[in-house]
Amino acid sequence: MVKIGFIGIGNMGKPMATNLLRAGYSLSIFNRRREKCEALTALGAEVAESPQHVAESTKVVITMLSDTQAVEQVLFGEKGVVLSLKPGSTVIDMSTISPVATVEFARRLEALGFQMLDAPVSGGEKGAVAGTLGIMVGGRRSTFEECHPLFHTVGKTVTYVGPSGHGQKTKLVNQLVGATNLLGAVEGLRLARAAGLDLETTLQAVSSGAASSWMLANLGPLILKEEFCPGFSIRLQHKDLKLVQQWISELGGDFPASNLVYLLFTRALEMGLGDQGNQGLINMWER
Amino acid sequence: MVKIGFIGIGNMGKPMATNLLRAGYSLSIFNRRREKCEALTALGAEVAESPQHVAESTKVVITMLSDTQAVEQVLFGEKGVVLSLKPGSTVIDMSTISPVATVEFARRLEALGFQMLDAPVSGGEKGAVAGTLGIMVGGRRSTFEECHPLFHTVGKTVTYVGPSGHGQKTKLVNQLVGATNLLGAVEGLRLARAAGLDLETTLQAVSSGAASSWMLANLGPLILKEEFCPGFSIRLQHKDLKLVQQWISELGGDFPASNLVYLLFTRALEMGLGDQGNQGLINMWER
Repeated sequence: MVKIGFIGIGNMGKPMATNLLRAGYSLSIFNRRREKCEALTALGAEVAESPQHVAESTKVVITMLSDTQAVEQVLFGEKGVVLSLKPGSTVIDMSTISPVATVEFARRLEALGFQMLDAPVSGGEKGAVAGTLGIMVGGRRSTFEECHPLFHTVGKTVTYVGPSGHGQKTKLVNQLVGATNLLGAVEGLRLARAAGLDLETTLQAVSSGAASSWMLANLGPLILKEEFCPGFSIRLQHKDLKLVQQWISELGGDFPASNLVYLLFTRALEMGLGDQGNQGLINMWER
Repeated sequence: MVKIGFIGIGNMGKPMATNLLRAGYSLSIFNRRREKCEALTALGAEVAESPQHVAESTKVVITMLSDTQAVEQVLFGEKGVVLSLKPGSTVIDMSTISPVATVEFARRLEALGFQMLDAPVSGGEKGAVAGTLGIMVGGRRSTFEECHPLFHTVGKTVTYVGPSGHGQKTKLVNQLVGATNLLGAVEGLRLARAAGLDLETTLQAVSSGAASSWMLANLGPLILKEEFCPGFSIRLQHKDLKLVQQWISELGGDFPASNLVYLLFTRALEMGLGDQGNQGLINMWER
């Protein structure tokens, strides 16, 4: 089977790489903190010295990193991927980063003879472990089709959404809608609590009709049990909402829900709630 | 079968009364504008001259009216229900009105020897026609249990939520969460449109994961088809959000999502969008 490069063995990257190894792919992996790679070497992954070293032996390199700057560094920086990548190879960035920077990275890679797909995911660590991620893919359709089996090894709902950058754009739309629904769920439960309603009963009644959402149905019960581990952390939710705000300021226009959720998640971060799951937004307010 | 009084033969009351008649209940009905009753007389309903007249011949009176003042008038005003209601009878208010006023109405009715249930519904005209409304019932549990068959004739998910006023409180929590989710759906689609994403594809990708909601899945497609008939009108959504704001000002505390959606629906009303379905919120912004 094809050998794949995988850069970024974190909370998301590790289970995704694990699923690729279990499906029979050979993997050359790199992570800045090398100790994170140990569990994967036991499954047969080779650990490379640098992103450049990963690129020497593969024709497809996946990146799963924390932010725009990290992706730029790994691709174009010192000992970066492009220094050794063979012409015709493909870079698949599965991180959530700036759509504007993504288009620029794709342009630079194409100028060097490579293809790039932006393929951010939704579904969190749980979805990464289960191999049920949603994947929103931007780039050339033909490149997307070549990578189809690979996407279906790590994800379930794989959607081709358009040219380069459209994967990131769709992901940011998803993050804005999800954060707004989360705010609705949190504020509804706060109102019920302030009014002395039974929270289980309220959650059941509200989840069964026109006010239902994934956030309410899945994170509502965690709030009732006071379980605030991520899931998807407030820090990462804030990072994504910041990308939404930056993108909106480039597009222009009035987006009041985005302004509000960004403001609230910024405050939550300042209050030291960054490492809680995003349902921990409710802890911004006293009971 | 028991004879039921039904006051308020509007967009919601008419299909609900129809379902009661079809299930074999005898109905005495009243509506301020009498011509709205005609279709129901054809199904066997008797039309009464006044709310008082309805109360003469029944032991259960349902009200389905537009606001708090209308309910007060029908119950306690000139030719009101209490003037002829027999001791031990039950008033079921299925309107969405102030929870504070509801508790007061229940207290006044109990002092006169009657029971009251507050039983607001969700599911809109469509749910009323299909008999699939969600019903959130507050009041004495024993009274709720006596009225069980009646609720299951007009609704599907019937939840007993606690003492008097709790039905209205649960409904207002529901309206706040729903309006916030609607804002998320609208703003997500606006962002996708501003960015030139394919809206069908975006809707499909975002609806399938953690950002999904009833509002996005059900009203998103209407927005794409530019169908803005109610459904549930902006005028009624605004009325309910105003009740939420009044209730919150009595409870105290900071509810930023409620403030935002109330502000936006107030503006939408001022812009003349009141008779559009609530998905018409998107028409507040130019393309």
